[in-house]
This record gives sequence, C-alpha cells and structure tokens, in this order.
Amino acid sequence: MEYSTSSLINSFQPKEKHTTLFNHQISARIRLATELDIPNLHKLVTQMAEYHGLSQIFTTTETSLYNNLFKSPNPPFHSPTALILEISPNPFPQTNHSTTTNFVPIIKNNYNFDNLEILDHELETYRSKFNGHGHDNSNNCNVYVAGHVLVYPSYNGFFEKPGLFLDQMFVRKCYRGMKFGKLLFSVVAMQAEKMGMGMVDWLVADWNEETINFYEKMGAHYIPEYRLCKLYGDQLQAFGRKSD
Amino acid sequence: MEYSTSSLINSFQPKEKHTTLFNHQISARIRLATELDIPNLHKLVTQMAEYHGLSQIFTTTETSLYNNLFKSPNPPFHSPTALILEISPNPFPQTNHSTTTNFVPIIKNNYNFDNLEILDHELETYRSKFNGHGHDNSNNCNVYVAGHVLVYPSYNGFFEKPGLFLDQMFVRKCYRGMKFGKLLFSVVAMQAEKMGMGMVDWLVADWNEETINFYEKMGAHYIPEYRLCKLYGDQLQAFGRKSD
Repeated sequence: MEYSTSSLINSFQPKEKHTTLFNHQISARIRLATELDIPNLHKLVTQMAEYHGLSQIFTTTETSLYNNLFKSPNPPFHSPTALILEISPNPFPQTNHSTTTNFVPIIKNNYNFDNLEILDHELETYRSKFNGHGHDNSNNCNVYVAGHVLVYPSYNGFFEKPGLFLDQMFVRKCYRGMKFGKLLFSVVAMQAEKMGMGMVDWLVADWNEETINFYEKMGAHYIPEYRLCKLYGDQLQAFGRKSD
Repeated sequence: MEYSTSSLINSFQPKEKHTTLFNHQISARIRLATELDIPNLHKLVTQMAEYHGLSQIFTTTETSLYNNLFKSPNPPFHSPTALILEISPNPFPQTNHSTTTNFVPIIKNNYNFDNLEILDHELETYRSKFNGHGHDNSNNCNVYVAGHVLVYPSYNGFFEKPGLFLDQMFVRKCYRGMKFGKLLFSVVAMQAEKMGMGMVDWLVADWNEETINFYEKMGAHYIPEYRLCKLYGDQLQAFGRKSD
C-alpha cells in the first residue's frame, strides 16, 4: 500500500530534478508551525490522508487549517497545534530560548549516514517558508519541510492529569527510516512532561503490528480493545526526558 | 461482567432503603456540572472505572476533577466539560435561557413507564447538590444524579471543522434501559452542531457489539481498525437536531 500510494502521489506531482543535496549528513529541526507553513502543511496532511486511504472523507482546506491552528486565543498545546519537521544539509543555528512561546525548537544537527541517497522529488515544493531568525530569507535556502505532527490537549476522566492527544504524525516517504518519527514523538512526550501533563494518547490501526511493537518498545501501554496507545506515568517521564 | 461488577460496587456501599419514589413517571434534566457536583461526579467516574475493570490505573481525585473541569479560562466545551444527568419523580421547572453560559439545560419531563420499579440503593448518596434556581435547597429534595458525560474539544487534521470528543458517558445501573444514554448522546451532538463543529468522536471496545450496532443505527461511522466512532456531516446534523 505504501508503494502504490506513494507512486500515485508522485504521479500527480510535477517531477523535480533532485540534487545530491545531502552528503553523509542531515540536520533536523522541530519547531512550532507558523502561518507561513500553511501551504506545506496542507500538502503534508493531504498526502497523509492519501496514504491512509481517507481521501474520500478529507475536507481540510488551507483556510480551515489556519482557523483551527491559529485563531485560538490559547497558547500552543492548549488548542490544536502543529509542529513542523525541517531538514537541511547544513546545521541549524541554535535558537535563543524564546519567552514569547512555550516551545523551544528542538535541533539535532549532523546526523551521520554512510550512504545518504535521498531522492526527494518534491524538494522545491517543500522548501521551508519559515524565517525564524530575523534575517533575510537566504537563511532558508537549504531548509525543507519533511514532516509534521498535530496535537491537542486531551482529558481522560480516569486519570488525575490531562494529556496531549497525538492526532497526526507524518514523515515524508523519502525521509523515513532515519528515526525522525521517533524524534517527533519524543518531542511531543517531552512537551507533555514539561507542561506537567500525565500522558500522550494516540490511535493505531490494528493491522499495523510493526508500529504497535515499535510503540510498546518505547514503553507505551497498548489497549487492544480500543486500539489506543497511552504513554503515561514513569514511561512518559522516561521518554520525555531523553530525546535521543 | 456487568452484574458482578455492580454487585461488587454495591457490596462496598452502605445499603440504603429504597423508596417507591418513582410511580409510572420519571423526569430528566441534563445540565452543566458545577463545583457542587464534584463529590457525586467523582463517585460516578469511580464506578465507571470499576465497571470497565480499570480501577488499577484510576488516579482521579476530587481535586483533579475540580482542576481539570473548572480551572480553565475557556468557556464550557472549549475545555474538558462535564454534563450531569439528573432524574426526579417531579417535573423540572423550565430554565430561563441563560446568557452567561453557552449551554441551556435540556429537560424531558414525565417519561411514562407502565411498571417503573427502580431499586436505587444509593439514592441518598446521589441526592443532587445543585440549586440552579436561586431558591433554597428544598427544591432539590427529589432530584438525584443518575449519570454523566465528559467531553472536550477535539481536532482531526483530515476534517475541515473541529469536534467534540466524548470521553465518558455513564448511566447508573438502575437507570439503564430508559433511553437516558441516547438522550445524553443527543445532547452532545446537539451542542456540537450548535457550536458549528463538524463531528463527535468516541471510542468503543471491540467486544461491545451491541453498543457498536446501537451507534451505527444512530448514523455513526464506525472505523473498526481503530474502534473509533465518528458522527459527522449530515448524520451529525440529523442527530443534533432531534433529541427525542
């Protein structure tokens, strides 16, 4: 399913010439989405719906993404919130700890891979529009969007503390197998832990045994009768405190 | 399981003499929970956890309920929100439409039953503490708490509009089979519809075929691989507009 869906997506995208941009090293940054990310985020969400065979019920528009993510008076993580995964062949500059938001970008520079052959047919399409450093856009020449997560605050009446519900986690196909999914997940767990929350919840399809095993190895509690995964208590703390 | 769990609960409760309070008629009201409901709500949530065999992971306290339900600066349904189902042998007075909250109590007076034999061993325990009419407490002499729902705002990145996640819906055993569950559910759907939301989501255990059938008859879309029920689109509108 993965291959055919991906081919389908690619067949509708203008083919872009890929460059040998990544040479043994790739750097990653996870930051809060901004309004400038809406077009890329909409493409990511659309591709994810196609991957899950849910295009028929898909109704998200760029406007609805904007309304749902950026019109709430609540700070990030107290209403639906998107995080963007960016990658670059160059290391990301360390960001000053911001006092205006409750999330500091997570940067992992210079992952080493022996044979880093990334065929990104949509490289130009996904060029990052974000400029978070107050400089001109040239800083972003080599920064590309590779994935996202969507979360919102959740509550379960059986637990003392509220949590974060992980609605979506997506890494573009050509960037899979590089542990970016785990990185995204750990950032969400860290944030829940930092905010004094008690859990991260998400749903997993029952056919997805590989993923269930992956989550259980992470320490998540899988409730098969609901297909619900729940990371809480000591396991949330353990996962939230180490992101490597 | 239902019987044994219920017997277990009852065996730990002080036995109360039941009265022939309900005589062919029972009236119901669904209203926003207030701080005065915390002790009763905590008992309901505790009983629900026992019923689902989840007492071992249960950590909710009266204080945590208060913090999660009443400390948010957001209005009801924009943060975790509890609704209380009250029953009485007497009709409830119609409430003036309040302008201070976004929820008007739903009242269904004088349900008729030919043989209404309700053995409520916890009648006194669940006497309602709510006094919503500005009169003295004598108004509430014959008002009892029979169930609750917990909801919070949810978001799914594949849909244009946000929704309400139905975390808990519970009717005390002696008041089941009287369509109060459906009434509670319809009130949640009505509220989602009224707020311009696009869906109500909830989880259902895969062993609970009877319940799944019940939800599907209501028009809910059941996604078996996730055990997720989703009421949206025309079906949400249809369900939200009729509460009978």
